[in-house]
Amino acid sequence: MSKIRTIVYGVGATGQNVTRHLAERGVDIVGAIGRVENVGADLGTVAELDRELNVEINDDADDVLENTEADVAIVSIASTLEEMYPHLKRCLEAGVNVITTSEETLYPWYTSPDLAGRLDRIAIENDVTFTGGGYQDIFEVNLPVMLTGASRKLDGVDGTNRYNIDDYGPAVVEYFFGGKDRDDVEEKLERGGAPESLFRTTLEAQIAELGLSEADASQKATPIVADRAVESEALGRTIQEGEVLGLEIDVTIETHEGITFTGTEIAKVYDTEEEDRNEWVIEGTPEMHVVDQPTPVEVGTSTQIVNRLPDIINYESGFVSVTELPRPKYRVGPLETYLD
Amino acid sequence: MSKIRTIVYGVGATGQNVTRHLAERGVDIVGAIGRVENVGADLGTVAELDRELNVEINDDADDVLENTEADVAIVSIASTLEEMYPHLKRCLEAGVNVITTSEETLYPWYTSPDLAGRLDRIAIENDVTFTGGGYQDIFEVNLPVMLTGASRKLDGVDGTNRYNIDDYGPAVVEYFFGGKDRDDVEEKLERGGAPESLFRTTLEAQIAELGLSEADASQKATPIVADRAVESEALGRTIQEGEVLGLEIDVTIETHEGITFTGTEIAKVYDTEEEDRNEWVIEGTPEMHVVDQPTPVEVGTSTQIVNRLPDIINYESGFVSVTELPRPKYRVGPLETYLD
Repeated sequence: MSKIRTIVYGVGATGQNVTRHLAERGVDIVGAIGRVENVGADLGTVAELDRELNVEINDDADDVLENTEADVAIVSIASTLEEMYPHLKRCLEAGVNVITTSEETLYPWYTSPDLAGRLDRIAIENDVTFTGGGYQDIFEVNLPVMLTGASRKLDGVDGTNRYNIDDYGPAVVEYFFGGKDRDDVEEKLERGGAPESLFRTTLEAQIAELGLSEADASQKATPIVADRAVESEALGRTIQEGEVLGLEIDVTIETHEGITFTGTEIAKVYDTEEEDRNEWVIEGTPEMHVVDQPTPVEVGTSTQIVNRLPDIINYESGFVSVTELPRPKYRVGPLETYLD
Repeated sequence: MSKIRTIVYGVGATGQNVTRHLAERGVDIVGAIGRVENVGADLGTVAELDRELNVEINDDADDVLENTEADVAIVSIASTLEEMYPHLKRCLEAGVNVITTSEETLYPWYTSPDLAGRLDRIAIENDVTFTGGGYQDIFEVNLPVMLTGASRKLDGVDGTNRYNIDDYGPAVVEYFFGGKDRDDVEEKLERGGAPESLFRTTLEAQIAELGLSEADASQKATPIVADRAVESEALGRTIQEGEVLGLEIDVTIETHEGITFTGTEIAKVYDTEEEDRNEWVIEGTPEMHVVDQPTPVEVGTSTQIVNRLPDIINYESGFVSVTELPRPKYRVGPLETYLD
């Protein structure tokens, strides 16, 4: 049985984590697509492995896709489907399955139905699959949906997710207005300038899996203001008392069936003693609470991608949500032994 | 579309809970099988509904199975497959699907392969399905297995389950030696007189789903001794300091793949301030902890049975483990709308 052949498409922090995990599992990496600053470098070196992988990073994606034979591309580039569209289209047209960490691709049918539909058709024409997965797969979608199986009467689902944006570099800190002036941020937010919460598509994936339909979706973002000076490693400076540490974004989605889905995303530069938190409450009878103690996102993301590879290759074709793939589980044997 | 037609087989605490839930969901109950003390009573009255269900409890199971047209029987009678065998055989031969709360039926292939194989053949011959489910479905099997999907390297799975045997009546308290003399209990345990922990089949269901194979299974039971007087409602008396409150049973299962499965069952009469606990640790990289805040077992059992009914009817035939059924979820619409 041949090994699974992968392309690492995007070699930032996530792509590097995935690379280390793929190498550990003996999965073939046949290509790497990255930005100009890494071009020509070996993927093993960039991912800080103790050996080269003999895979040169190339910024010409079409060149890589044309000149390799890959089963699946792991695409870690951006969040929105609009940004992802050309990358996904290119892979699918080359006959390569895709798993991406793009948050919107988790369930794009409400937020970008047109782009999702176009990619779905391209995937079907080329007999390949694409899915949005990674950290959200288990912890944000499949786990809470499974818990509803113990509901006698389901009234709602409520999630809380707190994480330290300082771990993700300056671009992410600035995306959530870290280090900015409070008044400026409040003005921007009033003009609708808040980023879309990751809970939007997370909750929509749950809604779809439960056979419900969305009636209304809204979100409200509030700046989290430092009540004392906090060090930001990503910004390389101190965020002063009164400046913004990040955002709390509250998402509410009503369904036509009367079940309400809510999420609270707390994306901020941490003060000391703060911990990541992922918590779900299944509301109704009975009320259920589940907390998973912080699983490092950077580990959780690559593991849920790598353990999923056989599922994505096995799936027929077109877009598939992580709720439609088989339930996630650890792969103890070589990954290719799980192929149909 | 016709409603799902059920038989409530066993009308103790679990059967009564299931009855209330079925009535709430508008599922047809076409028969009830109970012990002699309830014979002739209406199932609605026995289940403390505010109305009769026009279902008379009958202690002649064959009579009920012959004279009703049922899709599925919900069998809550006993724990071991040996005790359950005649009841399951009878239902399957009558062409009725079965879901049972019998702990061993959750995954009987290691502990009672012969009986399991015989029932499997009978089910296939009669084109019906049987499964062991209820509380363990999500919280003890599907939830921990799903979490392994975020493992980079899985070393083991460890569960802890603490519950108050005083809630389950005097038979259960005595089963775990509640109220007995410490020396007598220790002597009995030394002679191998401990009950089989529910973790045995729970962990074996996980092992099977992960594609692993069992090398060795063992358990060690230790009496939990009262360090002060504790009131037992089930026994109707005080358990004195030095007497036994219940058992801690530690189960260890080694697999040929080197992954170890362990469980700690704490079954005791509670002192004040003790709470139910269901906790799983996924050992390895990363180490993951999940705690679900106590979901009342009596609610969790009936809900996981009722939400499962369409899955059991839809499944082809033979024995099916809860890991092989579709992933559990809440059913917002009438249950019959989920039939294939």
